Amino acid sequence: MREWMKHVRQVDPYVPGEQPDQKNMIKLNTNESPYPPAPGVARAAKEFDTDSLRLYPSTTAELLVSELAEYYGFNSDQIFVGVGSDDVLAIAFMTFFNSDKPILFPEITYSFYSVWAELYKIPYERPKLDKNFNLVIEDYKQKNGGIIFPNPNAPTGVCESLDTVEEIIMSNQDVVVIIDEAYIDFGGKSALELVNQYDNVLVVQTFSKARSMAGIRIGYAIGSKELINAMNNVKFSFNSYTMNRTSIQLGVEAVRDKQYFEDTLAKVIQTREDAKVRLRELGFTFPDSKANFIFATHNRLKAEDIMSYLKERDIYVRHFKQPSIDNYLRISIGTDDEMEQLYKALEVIV
Amino acid sequence: MREWMKHVRQVDPYVPGEQPDQKNMIKLNTNESPYPPAPGVARAAKEFDTDSLRLYPSTTAELLVSELAEYYGFNSDQIFVGVGSDDVLAIAFMTFFNSDKPILFPEITYSFYSVWAELYKIPYERPKLDKNFNLVIEDYKQKNGGIIFPNPNAPTGVCESLDTVEEIIMSNQDVVVIIDEAYIDFGGKSALELVNQYDNVLVVQTFSKARSMAGIRIGYAIGSKELINAMNNVKFSFNSYTMNRTSIQLGVEAVRDKQYFEDTLAKVIQTREDAKVRLRELGFTFPDSKANFIFATHNRLKAEDIMSYLKERDIYVRHFKQPSIDNYLRISIGTDDEMEQLYKALEVIV
Repeated sequence: MREWMKHVRQVDPYVPGEQPDQKNMIKLNTNESPYPPAPGVARAAKEFDTDSLRLYPSTTAELLVSELAEYYGFNSDQIFVGVGSDDVLAIAFMTFFNSDKPILFPEITYSFYSVWAELYKIPYERPKLDKNFNLVIEDYKQKNGGIIFPNPNAPTGVCESLDTVEEIIMSNQDVVVIIDEAYIDFGGKSALELVNQYDNVLVVQTFSKARSMAGIRIGYAIGSKELINAMNNVKFSFNSYTMNRTSIQLGVEAVRDKQYFEDTLAKVIQTREDAKVRLRELGFTFPDSKANFIFATHNRLKAEDIMSYLKERDIYVRHFKQPSIDNYLRISIGTDDEMEQLYKALEVIV
Repeated sequence: MREWMKHVRQVDPYVPGEQPDQKNMIKLNTNESPYPPAPGVARAAKEFDTDSLRLYPSTTAELLVSELAEYYGFNSDQIFVGVGSDDVLAIAFMTFFNSDKPILFPEITYSFYSVWAELYKIPYERPKLDKNFNLVIEDYKQKNGGIIFPNPNAPTGVCESLDTVEEIIMSNQDVVVIIDEAYIDFGGKSALELVNQYDNVLVVQTFSKARSMAGIRIGYAIGSKELINAMNNVKFSFNSYTMNRTSIQLGVEAVRDKQYFEDTLAKVIQTREDAKVRLRELGFTFPDSKANFIFATHNRLKAEDIMSYLKERDIYVRHFKQPSIDNYLRISIGTDDEMEQLYKALEVIV
């Protein structure tokens, strides 16, 4: 082994989720929207002044920030934008979780939380969920260095009530509490309305799901101006230009079209509610989902076998090889037509 | 002070370089190209399928990677792409500089090196340049944990010969040596030809200068497949999706058009050589530049005064408040017309 190789950072090799790229495939494995972005996005791309690309983008992406501020009714200094919510969350971990007490997040949750905690050497504990996949509130009342959880949770789809969220916040006034709301628009109640009441609450959302723009990489955080200022300081201290000009320009259009956003959401929610009926008829059970996916287990067939069978028919769903959830499949909500093809395929093996 | 604020990461507040946005301004302060990107980029934007934005981008950006591989004559597994060369360099620091010996970079150089070193707690030493702003080779033959320097250097524009670069590499076979070639296309000799000979040499380049695409945020590193594999492992371990779909698609077009690239470079180089004559006539002296800027000091007037005077006339140049270079201005090379207006303004005060 060459000497320089001894000082290469050792990491757990991570295999990104499958991103098949085939004609006619039915892709229900990464919680993308089955619908295209708002029509204004296509218009903005056509009209985009590519000559402007010779110049650096705005470091603060103020066009996008002010559009989000107006949409959600906050001041611009309460909004931070980043390259996907992964970027936003990683910067939030780095900025706020510097205590020697452990941060808390659920045992079953978004897999990157433990990755960032290890990257930034943040101690952490992962309280178990109850048997219905709900948070056990008491577990979040112990001494800690910060709290983060997704609501609805991933990959379960289970949504906590705003009362539960607020109870956790009230018990944790001395640390930063991050609510990761990637899936909130599909039927949950957002903690955004608590942001002006608690200066230690950060709500993180994304353009990747309900706004149909996973391919553009935009995430954002909303909180008190003290929280946002701290994140901007950290971000600017090591990388000034991250949001490119196309993200800013196209992202603005996705926010502007409220009607399209709401219509698309309504369609996904309707398809999900139909899916609950159909999957139940097919012998699946699942916690009630408020997200754009259903986390289902079958009363007879093994999850892994179902996944393989579907894959042979070019239908992709997600399976996690993690103890206690390894007999579940996470099925993203597609179009009605895609879902019909899924049910038809499932009928054959059930 | 609220308790949570005590655990916010403390950073040196960083003020990003001025990005004025006025009609008719002459912007010679951030080393952008005065020419637009290749015509294929505009075409790609017009034809861009915005419906595809609903899907996540490729984690490996293989379209862009293979285009760069073909252009530079390397294998795809020798190329890493990131969100600007700042992203690429930060990941390289994190991946390779984990020794307890100090890494080395010049005292006068790109200001983010020390920022990343501090962020990742990497010890560092900064050998002085000689009086002509050249590297002192002997300083890079001491025990160290890695080496990084820009060639040409920023903000001086001074380019080291490939012999000098190779001498440093030969003396440092046990650590990773990073050559930051953001400005290499403007007349320097690239270390790319050493990459297949030394498995510990990483060359980093960018789309922001010679490829006229500062606004799209693309940087890349070329090295042995062992180096690139290590960087990919680190990157994938904490953030899988960073290059958005527009960057990949538009970036590919910027690489394809070799003729446009070379024509644009030739124009910038010609304007720079003219500028050397004109600035000298106006009483400036400067180290010979192989970059798209000139780092100049005046024989009578103070740099800061010249900058303020120019700013009043909407001409922006860069001044660094750093001891030993605070009487210098870094003047980016604009179009011939912009440079004529600069000379005219300077003639008035000289």
